[in-house]
Amino acid sequence: MTTIKDSVHDHIEIDGIAADLLNTPMLQRLRHVKQLGTVGLVYPSANHTRFEHSLGVYHLASRALDHLDVKGPRRDRIEAAAILHDIGHGPFSHNIEQVIHRRTGKYHDDVGDLLGDGAIGNTLRSSGIDPGRIAGLIRGEGAYGGLVSGELDVDRMDYLVRDAHHTGVPYGTIDHERLIRELRIVDGELVLDEGNVQTAESLLLARALMNPTVYEHHVARISKVLLRRATEQLLERTDIGAAQLRRMDDHDLLVALRNHEPTQPYASRYDTRDLLKRALWAELEDVPERLLDATHDRIREFETQIADRVDIAEATVILDIPSRPSMTETSTRVMVNGEIRRLDDQSPLVSALRTAQENKWRMGVYTDAETTEQVGRAAVTELGLDLDGSRISRVRRESNATLDEFTAE
Amino acid sequence: MTTIKDSVHDHIEIDGIAADLLNTPMLQRLRHVKQLGTVGLVYPSANHTRFEHSLGVYHLASRALDHLDVKGPRRDRIEAAAILHDIGHGPFSHNIEQVIHRRTGKYHDDVGDLLGDGAIGNTLRSSGIDPGRIAGLIRGEGAYGGLVSGELDVDRMDYLVRDAHHTGVPYGTIDHERLIRELRIVDGELVLDEGNVQTAESLLLARALMNPTVYEHHVARISKVLLRRATEQLLERTDIGAAQLRRMDDHDLLVALRNHEPTQPYASRYDTRDLLKRALWAELEDVPERLLDATHDRIREFETQIADRVDIAEATVILDIPSRPSMTETSTRVMVNGEIRRLDDQSPLVSALRTAQENKWRMGVYTDAETTEQVGRAAVTELGLDLDGSRISRVRRESNATLDEFTAE
Amino acid sequence: MTTIKDSVHDHIEIDGIAADLLNTPMLQRLRHVKQLGTVGLVYPSANHTRFEHSLGVYHLASRALDHLDVKGPRRDRIEAAAILHDIGHGPFSHNIEQVIHRRTGKYHDDVGDLLGDGAIGNTLRSSGIDPGRIAGLIRGEGAYGGLVSGELDVDRMDYLVRDAHHTGVPYGTIDHERLIRELRIVDGELVLDEGNVQTAESLLLARALMNPTVYEHHVARISKVLLRRATEQLLERTDIGAAQLRRMDDHDLLVALRNHEPTQPYASRYDTRDLLKRALWAELEDVPERLLDATHDRIREFETQIADRVDIAEATVILDIPSRPSMTETSTRVMVNGEIRRLDDQSPLVSALRTAQENKWRMGVYTDAETTEQVGRAAVTELGLDLDGSRISRVRRESNATLDEFTAE
Amino acid sequence: MTTIKDSVHDHIEIDGIAADLLNTPMLQRLRHVKQLGTVGLVYPSANHTRFEHSLGVYHLASRALDHLDVKGPRRDRIEAAAILHDIGHGPFSHNIEQVIHRRTGKYHDDVGDLLGDGAIGNTLRSSGIDPGRIAGLIRGEGAYGGLVSGELDVDRMDYLVRDAHHTGVPYGTIDHERLIRELRIVDGELVLDEGNVQTAESLLLARALMNPTVYEHHVARISKVLLRRATEQLLERTDIGAAQLRRMDDHDLLVALRNHEPTQPYASRYDTRDLLKRALWAELEDVPERLLDATHDRIREFETQIADRVDIAEATVILDIPSRPSMTETSTRVMVNGEIRRLDDQSPLVSALRTAQENKWRMGVYTDAETTEQVGRAAVTELGLDLDGSRISRVRRESNATLDEFTAE
Repeated sequence: MTTIKDSVHDHIEIDGIAADLLNTPMLQRLRHVKQLGTVGLVYPSANHTRFEHSLGVYHLASRALDHLDVKGPRRDRIEAAAILHDIGHGPFSHNIEQVIHRRTGKYHDDVGDLLGDGAIGNTLRSSGIDPGRIAGLIRGEGAYGGLVSGELDVDRMDYLVRDAHHTGVPYGTIDHERLIRELRIVDGELVLDEGNVQTAESLLLARALMNPTVYEHHVARISKVLLRRATEQLLERTDIGAAQLRRMDDHDLLVALRNHEPTQPYASRYDTRDLLKRALWAELEDVPERLLDATHDRIREFETQIADRVDIAEATVILDIPSRPSMTETSTRVMVNGEIRRLDDQSPLVSALRTAQENKWRMGVYTDAETTEQVGRAAVTELGLDLDGSRISRVRRESNATLDEFTAE
Repeated sequence: MTTIKDSVHDHIEIDGIAADLLNTPMLQRLRHVKQLGTVGLVYPSANHTRFEHSLGVYHLASRALDHLDVKGPRRDRIEAAAILHDIGHGPFSHNIEQVIHRRTGKYHDDVGDLLGDGAIGNTLRSSGIDPGRIAGLIRGEGAYGGLVSGELDVDRMDYLVRDAHHTGVPYGTIDHERLIRELRIVDGELVLDEGNVQTAESLLLARALMNPTVYEHHVARISKVLLRRATEQLLERTDIGAAQLRRMDDHDLLVALRNHEPTQPYASRYDTRDLLKRALWAELEDVPERLLDATHDRIREFETQIADRVDIAEATVILDIPSRPSMTETSTRVMVNGEIRRLDDQSPLVSALRTAQENKWRMGVYTDAETTEQVGRAAVTELGLDLDGSRISRVRRESNATLDEFTAE
Repeated sequence: MTTIKDSVHDHIEIDGIAADLLNTPMLQRLRHVKQLGTVGLVYPSANHTRFEHSLGVYHLASRALDHLDVKGPRRDRIEAAAILHDIGHGPFSHNIEQVIHRRTGKYHDDVGDLLGDGAIGNTLRSSGIDPGRIAGLIRGEGAYGGLVSGELDVDRMDYLVRDAHHTGVPYGTIDHERLIRELRIVDGELVLDEGNVQTAESLLLARALMNPTVYEHHVARISKVLLRRATEQLLERTDIGAAQLRRMDDHDLLVALRNHEPTQPYASRYDTRDLLKRALWAELEDVPERLLDATHDRIREFETQIADRVDIAEATVILDIPSRPSMTETSTRVMVNGEIRRLDDQSPLVSALRTAQENKWRMGVYTDAETTEQVGRAAVTELGLDLDGSRISRVRRESNATLDEFTAE
Repeated sequence: MTTIKDSVHDHIEIDGIAADLLNTPMLQRLRHVKQLGTVGLVYPSANHTRFEHSLGVYHLASRALDHLDVKGPRRDRIEAAAILHDIGHGPFSHNIEQVIHRRTGKYHDDVGDLLGDGAIGNTLRSSGIDPGRIAGLIRGEGAYGGLVSGELDVDRMDYLVRDAHHTGVPYGTIDHERLIRELRIVDGELVLDEGNVQTAESLLLARALMNPTVYEHHVARISKVLLRRATEQLLERTDIGAAQLRRMDDHDLLVALRNHEPTQPYASRYDTRDLLKRALWAELEDVPERLLDATHDRIREFETQIADRVDIAEATVILDIPSRPSMTETSTRVMVNGEIRRLDDQSPLVSALRTAQENKWRMGVYTDAETTEQVGRAAVTELGLDLDGSRISRVRRESNATLDEFTAE
């Protein structure tokens, strides 16, 4: 048995199949993929990696399996899935996942190919484990797949606490030990035991508070789109391909961006934190459906059109349309009065949180500081927005309140 | 200047009028009044006192005044109010406040008489401070009174974090430093600056999670009612009067209960944690208005009636009707788009939290383990409840899930 | 199984014999005995109790037994001893232990009589456990007794971390989980495994730092002697006896001191933190053997003589001669190169720490602020000290640096 | 003013010259230099950077200057030096500093050239600050230089606490706030005020415990030497020069090692944590002076000789001779009895800690797992060690106790 010291869970004991997988190159690679990508530009302490997170997820899964009294091959499979659940992540985690997905069709949890190959595949098979079943668990299939990926998964429990520890934002401090102790398998579903509606709500609330403060902070979003545009240029204008990109780590990608001429300006902006500024912010109710549904190509056309109208370089206009807010926790299962209930049937907070999240959603147009005024006006025209002056001034004011700081938190 | 080491805020510097007040007997007395009263029977580590809390409230007030750039006599008054805000607390804090109030007409924030008297009055007056103005601030009068007692007061900010530290329940970990930095005085009102709707929500959510888990935990409630009945007996059947009670600390009250014959059985139950059990639990929708509005005397009549019907001692039946849930934070003022807005106009969470709190409200009838069945039936009859079997079994089930543990959390 | 939330160890699971003992009056009584007694007058947050500490010691013992793979009746006995190890404590823990001991001959770990009696005795015997063996473990007999009371006991591991959490002084933050994982039983002795000389040193250093900063802080010492003198008066001048005193809790003692006329002045000083000041401080090298070996009666005679010489009331002079510094950790056993070694044979820190502790030792004479000069001079004469002016001014200077603050830390 | 959220110090306010320097490329570059280099291979959570540490050092300096009441241009200079103190660090911080130094003659604190150039030079000069004086402060010149770099510097205070937070090892948790409050300038020297011998000791002890557990952990050392050898190859066998290396960040270096053929095998070992194992460990007393004084070239000759004797590739033998233990804290100045004293004149711990550190010193010879036996024997011969069997078996045993784990802590 191996014991590893972790800043969040203290001593993590690693045993069995997980210990065998620990030193595989694909897993060690996660030491070089930051958990929160560009969030580090907002919270400078947020440099933790997918590797330590993977250890934490394994640790919580293992404790949950103790409480659920799961042993033998099933336990091995779940522990393997827990420690491997993030090996599909490309560099900068979620930040450039869409770029990879558009070209390879692979999301980070579509890891069938990675699990079957090389050292991981060999390790799994030599322990009598079918890599395909691990892939299924990582996609959340079955009751125990829900423990790895679902409304009540240990992934979320680890990252909320870990992200709070490393950013300094206290909102993620859930009672993960309580959550794990109250997990049950009932009728083939992973549920929280009687008396835990509030425990489920606390998980939901923690994510609802961390979302705008950390994960969707506008400086992190601007940096994310910057990195995405840069990576697209890398794929379009150099001989680096999507499959190669997918196996890179953060170092590889950053250095590739620095060293290739077409992407060097992006890298320089990122390295010196010379980010674009907000030219326009619009709320969900002001953004027509056709924009919300716009394809990636269409969005880049809009950017070109706006840039052309102002007569500046295309690369200095970014249109960021976040996906509509979602809350997977709403279907969390909780035992109430002897029945399995969905959390959104039981808790009035669920729909209120959905509304609150929609209120915080913002479409953004970003550009250099000196062209924000013109680009803002051009964007209203090109995007066909129906924004009168009062609405624009309203988001402008909010913007002033938070954008000019280094980290607006 | 005096520096005190605090487990929550680290070093607290005390200066000026607060330093002069520090050694007055009325303030030192708070060393012997626990912050959370009977909550210690649920969370054994919750032994922190009103004294350390008062230091913490002073500390946060002082930091807020730095940010608000308040100096001179106004600052002195606010700092004095902050450190003195709890001197009106009787033994066991809120637990027996109603008992004192019914007899003296004094709530713990009705401290005009205490502030004018003795060492505190002398200290205030010799610094040119009118005790009456301090009393006003403690009651929350004026914009700066809102800092001491209001929706955005430093009292709440301290106790949420402190109670989390001492119970081990993480839900109270708000970002108090952020809250304090964002306070502004606008048009004579204490508000949070632009961009802080979510900061306000986080405070609301922390209290919403701490409430049922800590402050209104049913074991803490049962113990509280037990202590209240004991204290009523003490006042009714011994020569101890309400004014004397009000100046007692926890030691005095507990020993008085132990040493007087009529209250000895209550003290013994408390000391040995031999608490009554739940005979009946009813939800808000099942409890008619007339019960919700029942006076204290009427409630004790009900207890007698129920006990008589089962033919047991009156003291072994307790009817606990909590007051209707309230949320003072709902009127928190936040700057939005240059205007002062109420949080409940701005956040969909407010009404959802109100509903959530109502869902968690429970009227309880408690008795000895061996008579719960009979007392439950008797209570349905005597209270005139319209509860069919399915409803009763529903709350019974919930009860089984959490009541039999030592600490149900 | 019962689960209790603890502010230090999070969830503590209590099972078997420990769960049966949990609700006995003698154990519940520890809820009302503060862990650090008068240290609360220095660190206002230090209000934690022997009860939560007892739970913590049980928890760590239980984890250690997991690692040592101890099961069955032996495990039951050790867990019982762990949770019961402090039931012999009188009010204010160590503060008045000597007073009790001088009259009853009982130290707090001489608990044979308490373990055999009442609910605890019945519970133990009905589980087939001999109370006498539990008493032996609490006194530290045998290899496993060393786990409860010895150089490597879980008592120390819990209190260092818990006292750090509650005082805010970070020096006690040892790596208790590491310590517990490295315990082994070798040749019938409890030792730390190979590679842990430094782990043993860290425990020693933590206590060496906590000692003067927390446990032996001079304000805590002055208050302790005050409380002792008060309690002696209580025993001498009222009808309260030592056996009764031993079973009191903090509430009983404080209220008894307040309510009896001879002790009321002491209680008032304690309640209002109106403590005596330093009249003289002497270092170990300046104090002759005969003073170090003086009996309690002789010390009180000295106090009378000094008071007489200055012509003030006897009660306003206190002579405090701490016992010579000791370090039980020096004989900690550690595996080195396959052999069991004593830590003081292995680590150069041990003797240095002993010297450092001796350097910090101070004999003190305390009196009211207005008589410090005269009492200081009288004490030099009466105690026959050979202190020239330069030495006195040396300790005086140190005194000025730290004594005038509220909490000198 | 800019406010940044930090995981250790919560909110850090940045103002004046420090705010102007914040966005310079040389400072932003430190976001990409890990604080602890290869220690991350032992403690997976240790991914914090020189950037967040620089902010922390600035923050503590700023608080110290508040307490010392330093204002105006002097304050500007010290704050600039604090935030810039690490800009001379090459990639992987201290890990490859010697490699750079051997070629450029520059240590990381020899930053005169970097401070005068580019954005930093311009920013400093435009605020009327002479870059040369900043360089002097960073080298520790003058009383206030001691605050930036000296026995009582805020650099150490930040890194001890930060490294503890990120590794999970609690030994670094000093009371930095206490240290900062007790700093004084006396007779042109930075000292701790009266009554702080123990405060000084606590700083010393924290570093003494962190050293072997974290900074000098043998796995971190092996990885460090691996990285050094790889970097030497990079400089010798590619066209990358030392000046270029010095300005790289971690990404640049790691990718350069991966992408150049001569260094690829080293990079692969690092990436997959396929580290060399211990072939021999020798204690200080067993290592002759001539080895302790051996030049870098001589050490590499020894490696070749040992490899030749066993007939394996040179690159698979590493000889690691750490420098002799030093303790800069020993000359810490503390006020005692009105005089400035050196800590080693005052505290018996200093020389004991020096001895303890010497006891923990180990020279190591490392190679592949399959050749440890032969390489161990060859090393004894080639290095001319006088080691009999019992000594070798002694260190072998110790080695077995800790080396085979993943992270030995």
